[in-house]
Amino acid sequence: MNIIDVGTSAPYPVVVGHGLLEETGDYIKHYAKRAETAALITDDTVDAFYGGRVEKSIAGAGLRVIRYVVPHGEGSKNAENYISIMNFLAKEQVTRSDLIVALGGGVVGDLAGFAAATYLRRIDYIQIPTTLLAQVDSSVGGKTAIDLEAGKNLAGAFYQPKLVLCDLDTLDTLPEEIFRDGCAEVIKYGILWDEDLFEHLKARRTDFDREYTVSRCIEMKRDVVTVDEFDNGKRQFLNFGHTLAHAAEALSNYSISHGQAVAMGMATIAEKAAADGTCSASCAAEIAGILDRFGLPVKFTYTPDEMYEVMLSDKKRKGGKISLILPEEIGYCVIRKYTLEEMKEFLCGGPD
Amino acid sequence: MNIIDVGTSAPYPVVVGHGLLEETGDYIKHYAKRAETAALITDDTVDAFYGGRVEKSIAGAGLRVIRYVVPHGEGSKNAENYISIMNFLAKEQVTRSDLIVALGGGVVGDLAGFAAATYLRRIDYIQIPTTLLAQVDSSVGGKTAIDLEAGKNLAGAFYQPKLVLCDLDTLDTLPEEIFRDGCAEVIKYGILWDEDLFEHLKARRTDFDREYTVSRCIEMKRDVVTVDEFDNGKRQFLNFGHTLAHAAEALSNYSISHGQAVAMGMATIAEKAAADGTCSASCAAEIAGILDRFGLPVKFTYTPDEMYEVMLSDKKRKGGKISLILPEEIGYCVIRKYTLEEMKEFLCGGPD
Repeated sequence: MNIIDVGTSAPYPVVVGHGLLEETGDYIKHYAKRAETAALITDDTVDAFYGGRVEKSIAGAGLRVIRYVVPHGEGSKNAENYISIMNFLAKEQVTRSDLIVALGGGVVGDLAGFAAATYLRRIDYIQIPTTLLAQVDSSVGGKTAIDLEAGKNLAGAFYQPKLVLCDLDTLDTLPEEIFRDGCAEVIKYGILWDEDLFEHLKARRTDFDREYTVSRCIEMKRDVVTVDEFDNGKRQFLNFGHTLAHAAEALSNYSISHGQAVAMGMATIAEKAAADGTCSASCAAEIAGILDRFGLPVKFTYTPDEMYEVMLSDKKRKGGKISLILPEEIGYCVIRKYTLEEMKEFLCGGPD
Repeated sequence: MNIIDVGTSAPYPVVVGHGLLEETGDYIKHYAKRAETAALITDDTVDAFYGGRVEKSIAGAGLRVIRYVVPHGEGSKNAENYISIMNFLAKEQVTRSDLIVALGGGVVGDLAGFAAATYLRRIDYIQIPTTLLAQVDSSVGGKTAIDLEAGKNLAGAFYQPKLVLCDLDTLDTLPEEIFRDGCAEVIKYGILWDEDLFEHLKARRTDFDREYTVSRCIEMKRDVVTVDEFDNGKRQFLNFGHTLAHAAEALSNYSISHGQAVAMGMATIAEKAAADGTCSASCAAEIAGILDRFGLPVKFTYTPDEMYEVMLSDKKRKGGKISLILPEEIGYCVIRKYTLEEMKEFLCGGPD
């Protein structure tokens, strides 16, 4: 078991280990002493596996547990569920000193976190991420949000949890594809900042040491969000591969998974970075190679022109130039800013 | 003209003066330099009086102005308008460096402020309160919220504006009743912390010196929110009269105005405080007297028993005891906590 302290404006620990679900109640008693009611928010899939176990643990600690279950899938991160959860909390007389428990993947974490950030202008919450992706990424750092008609993550808040419990046992029940999705983000951390982790993953493939790997990723994420809580600087590195990934996801109407899209994004950026001399050809080959070993795709089925068009419309919302994260070598990446013209050149020009 | 600096986690100035609407653009250029687009959110009544003037000033400063107008009245502070504003901002390509301008009373300020607190996880906003109540109360302190089916202000955020512009000229177009509503809160500040202000109001009635009065109220609110940004302590004093007021508003199904309810709440509490010896009979008479001079009501039409029943259900959400603010003398009040039983005794027992 490993405890990683995250030193954001409101500091909190991330616990990584086995059998944590059964200890949820004990952790809540320690880290959220004032709570009398825990509102457990989860999705139907996770609820079937783990809802009862977590509820039993929390009830065992003397708290009243109420449960709100949304359908699984990205579609649940919407305004209707958000409003409905808020009304549910009020009808159940949840007070400012009570607690929300987010049990599930990134969708549940983002939705329940946003409810916690805004119910009665904020109540405490804890994250219990049950996917690899959520454990190494979304459950740490306090980004909460819901999707609206006009776009993803449009309504949200930066709001840190009181505690994150990463129970590695929950990874056992993940479908193969969802596990691989998380692997793409894990590999990303290796490329960005940790050659040792990269080598470990290359050698062990999906049989990597879970506690070591999840802990290292969380430590790296912690280091970034501690210096850039509100996403104005270093946190951008976490977007390695993501600018292209978001474009491809949008083009596919979200039929390709986030992990697959990120894998293709990282491989494509690396290839382009090798072409313009930012990294060596062997570095780009290493990146494509490890993704391939994890069964992740490395080639987009969209043309650079198609990708550019989507980025163009996305860019307007963010203003200014487009920042891309480029690998110089495994474990060291740089941020480079591109105008739209340069971006088009970078994507569509060159040897392809 | 008077500038009051509010030293919350993100500090900001409140400007109190005449002719400020016409200078909105200049202020934005100074206090929100990065913005390229200003999303002006207002209601139909205020829009008809001032929308064009403010838009012209902002456009004159070189910003693109987009406008979103909700119907006037408390009913507009709802989830539908909130979601609709968020989608509007996205479709208009409002970026993280742009700005929301809330022009109107408390409803517009709370709604637009909550949109600013959560759009792309927060963008800057400025408050231009156009009612007396909003100028002395809701526009300062960063409480934003919307009402949901299950209750008022259920979804919200603590989120400070970049700037507040209190243009005293806007008070000229206020309907008499809405002006008097604000007077109840102004009188409240006098009773709480400022005997001089109380005497000024007593002498001048509704013809009080506006710049002096609005500025003093804002200074007092500033002093409270600076030490208690997240409403865990001293900010409770601002609830003087409000616990009973909320009960009466709910009983009336919100047909009596907030200001009238607060006036009745303050007078009733003062009367009870005199009965149990917390303040003198002459202090209670002073309070009833000034409210009466302002044409504000001092007697509830509901019985203490009815009021108690409503508070009982409201109390469950907040947990623990009920805190009441009691006057000891004009300019000095105390907080006293009551169990439900004691509260019933306080309200329903005694000489009545």
